[in-house]
Amino acid sequence: MEKAEIGLIGLAVMGSNLALNIAEKGNRIAVFNRTTSVTDEFYESAGDLKKQIIPCRTIEEFVEAIRPPRPIIIMIKAGEPVDQQMAALQPHLSKGDIMIDAGNANFRDTMARFDRLKDTELTFIGMGVSGGEEGARHGPSIMVGGTEESYKRVEKVLTSISAKYNGEDCCAWLGTDGAGHFVKTVHNGIEYADMQMIAEIYGILRDGLGKTADEISKIFGDWNKGRLNSYLIEITEKVLAAKDPTTGTAMPDIILDKAGQKGTGKWSVIEAQNMGIPATAIEAAVAARSLSSMKEQREAAEKIFGAPTNEFPMTFGADLLNDLEMALFAAKIGAYAQGFAVMAEASRQFDWSLPMPVIAKIWRAGCIIRSQFLDEITSAFTKAPDAANLVVTPAFSDMVKESLPSLRRIVSAAVTAGLPVPALASALGYFDAYRQARGTANLIQAQRDFFGAHGFDRVDGKDIHHGPWGSGAQG
Amino acid sequence: MEKAEIGLIGLAVMGSNLALNIAEKGNRIAVFNRTTSVTDEFYESAGDLKKQIIPCRTIEEFVEAIRPPRPIIIMIKAGEPVDQQMAALQPHLSKGDIMIDAGNANFRDTMARFDRLKDTELTFIGMGVSGGEEGARHGPSIMVGGTEESYKRVEKVLTSISAKYNGEDCCAWLGTDGAGHFVKTVHNGIEYADMQMIAEIYGILRDGLGKTADEISKIFGDWNKGRLNSYLIEITEKVLAAKDPTTGTAMPDIILDKAGQKGTGKWSVIEAQNMGIPATAIEAAVAARSLSSMKEQREAAEKIFGAPTNEFPMTFGADLLNDLEMALFAAKIGAYAQGFAVMAEASRQFDWSLPMPVIAKIWRAGCIIRSQFLDEITSAFTKAPDAANLVVTPAFSDMVKESLPSLRRIVSAAVTAGLPVPALASALGYFDAYRQARGTANLIQAQRDFFGAHGFDRVDGKDIHHGPWGSGAQG
Repeated sequence: MEKAEIGLIGLAVMGSNLALNIAEKGNRIAVFNRTTSVTDEFYESAGDLKKQIIPCRTIEEFVEAIRPPRPIIIMIKAGEPVDQQMAALQPHLSKGDIMIDAGNANFRDTMARFDRLKDTELTFIGMGVSGGEEGARHGPSIMVGGTEESYKRVEKVLTSISAKYNGEDCCAWLGTDGAGHFVKTVHNGIEYADMQMIAEIYGILRDGLGKTADEISKIFGDWNKGRLNSYLIEITEKVLAAKDPTTGTAMPDIILDKAGQKGTGKWSVIEAQNMGIPATAIEAAVAARSLSSMKEQREAAEKIFGAPTNEFPMTFGADLLNDLEMALFAAKIGAYAQGFAVMAEASRQFDWSLPMPVIAKIWRAGCIIRSQFLDEITSAFTKAPDAANLVVTPAFSDMVKESLPSLRRIVSAAVTAGLPVPALASALGYFDAYRQARGTANLIQAQRDFFGAHGFDRVDGKDIHHGPWGSGAQG
Repeated sequence: MEKAEIGLIGLAVMGSNLALNIAEKGNRIAVFNRTTSVTDEFYESAGDLKKQIIPCRTIEEFVEAIRPPRPIIIMIKAGEPVDQQMAALQPHLSKGDIMIDAGNANFRDTMARFDRLKDTELTFIGMGVSGGEEGARHGPSIMVGGTEESYKRVEKVLTSISAKYNGEDCCAWLGTDGAGHFVKTVHNGIEYADMQMIAEIYGILRDGLGKTADEISKIFGDWNKGRLNSYLIEITEKVLAAKDPTTGTAMPDIILDKAGQKGTGKWSVIEAQNMGIPATAIEAAVAARSLSSMKEQREAAEKIFGAPTNEFPMTFGADLLNDLEMALFAAKIGAYAQGFAVMAEASRQFDWSLPMPVIAKIWRAGCIIRSQFLDEITSAFTKAPDAANLVVTPAFSDMVKESLPSLRRIVSAAVTAGLPVPALASALGYFDAYRQARGTANLIQAQRDFFGAHGFDRVDGKDIHHGPWGSGAQG
């Protein structure tokens, strides 16, 4: 029997869709699931693709079915189960075999797993896969971390199944050990910010301007034809237009305002903090989800403080709609700039040399934040690979100059009306601080020197590092 | 020779000041420093206090000099050195002896050290000490974590040296293992936010209203007589009034705007993220320090984007000054509310039962954020110990109602003028989201169900958890 090109363990939703995608693209694949009936059902329902699939009932049979060196995708629940599966698999493997974790792992776990295999003849790939079930089945965005050699072994299969943007593969090798899972984490952090900013604009339309879900859906539909064109805007139009079959109410109006989260947003923020890179729009988005889950506290607080009573201080019409669109656009640039800055610093700290234009490229299709905007980022970073920040690339600095006044007007208006816009305001604050050559940290340095003798540098470069504070001070 | 009541290792600035404080309050103390000349110099310069101090040249001599069970304060550089010192000390100790880390440890290290001693007859205290050199010498705020029994052994000494507020000790036992260092970490996180908010108001006065350092100093001096009365406002007045002896320039004007940080702000944010508790004002303050350190990037960005050109849209005068004062006050409530919410959740997660009114009480004097405001927090939490958040206690909800409109006006004006107010805006966004019974996370839940079939709850409680999204969706 012809050997499989790759193996896959774990046939739950994501795993089975990925396996079908691999088979459909002409790659022979061996599959294994702990519960054998799941393997049987998967195989039976594979139709024409059966001929590319080798269903296996034991680990021995499964390993035997794959052409060495064997790439084996593990697509199971992140965390402990992955370590258990690796331990169970390891005795059956031989030189050069590659265990590939395609789940949503924390990149620090991925680094530890990679290290653990260092002194064996085996190796490890941590692979971020974005796009949900639909992406897994028809073309995800794939972010690979591991040795370059191990990537060469799987490149053909992975690029065959990945999403395409104008014919280019949304799959790339990004660096060693945790690079792939780190980039996937930041992708999700940006996704949090993007979604939160959309929700804030929705809130202004709903609560500040009294628009219905249908009306708001149409507005997002229009925006999707312009520079905001993206998957998230597209689905915003769709979910706002959908009706609850049982009551006829617009779906968003019957959904509870408590958002879930699975950890990747939080990890982005924690790693940004660890590295000292501002990621305030992502932080605001994660905090907004946390606040959303405190529904009872919010209800109690509204009883105490009342709902906002100030009117939204701008009149509905074409100008305001343009401002809302441009505000969302400007804030989006801020969030992406922060995400890319976090990756640039991680690349330095973890010795990954993450290729910024390539990351933008493979996010253009397949993943949740896919958009034409990412094509513009690709081009900006290709032309200016050493730019300190996305916002100072020539293309984006022009976009910021054009759209920032709208963001300023919208944040100011929302703040006046008492509508929460934490992520929009954070993005604006980021711009305003980033472009301020002389900030106000001089005062903080003076205070720190006063109470803790921490010292400071001077604008005139003189070699005097403490102030003449006098009595009560430490300096 | 009469034995010492307590020992102290490490006679650098903080350690020697603490030792003198202990001696001065009538406690006999044994001291040890790795470099014996430091011990000698310390002892020689101790004057009248010599009679309370036993200078020791060896660890054996040092341990022998202390009355068992021996409390030994270790006041050296945080991290590895503490573990090394503990390892060197341990063989010389006997049943019931207490090693006390009084440095700025990460509470997770403190928990690990506490655990490591669990199966020995020794025990460990992690003790947060705030107030800088001045505090260490004349009365710091002391936050103790360890067993209640070990605290009883040191209580008399510690309360004798701590700061006093209306005669009450600013020292307390807060819970086991990492409780003391955790509370100290959050103290510092709040301090970051408080300082950043002051700096933002300073920025409005300097850049938005063209005031000089002297003029701004007088304004803070006035505010220090009102509800903002606090150590940080007091020193803001002082540092703004100080002149550079060499040039006569106001000190803050010759200090470089690059603020340093030592980790505790970052730790606060990371732990808040780990627990899912919004700490957005603290996050904004930490990010602002990070941005301040990117001086060259900021200079380059200002060249591209230009300095802000919009005028500050409010006229200088008594009304605006009142708004600035009240805005700072409202934002400060937000930052403290976040810090206390983080501690409340940590108390649940780490089984500490942190006493909120006690924490506020021991912060009223001795530490950097000391203020009359903390006396109001003490009283609010004493009257409403089960309040979900500081802002919904009767006393503080009234203050928020009174001051929030000012914060709204100031943030809106600063945003319009292009002046960065990230921490003030974050505090405002926190209030606005916290008092919104019906938020916008329903849209996020719709999107998440659309692309990832994550499911949602409904406002009508019906048992239907996915939307009728149709083609392209995963639900």
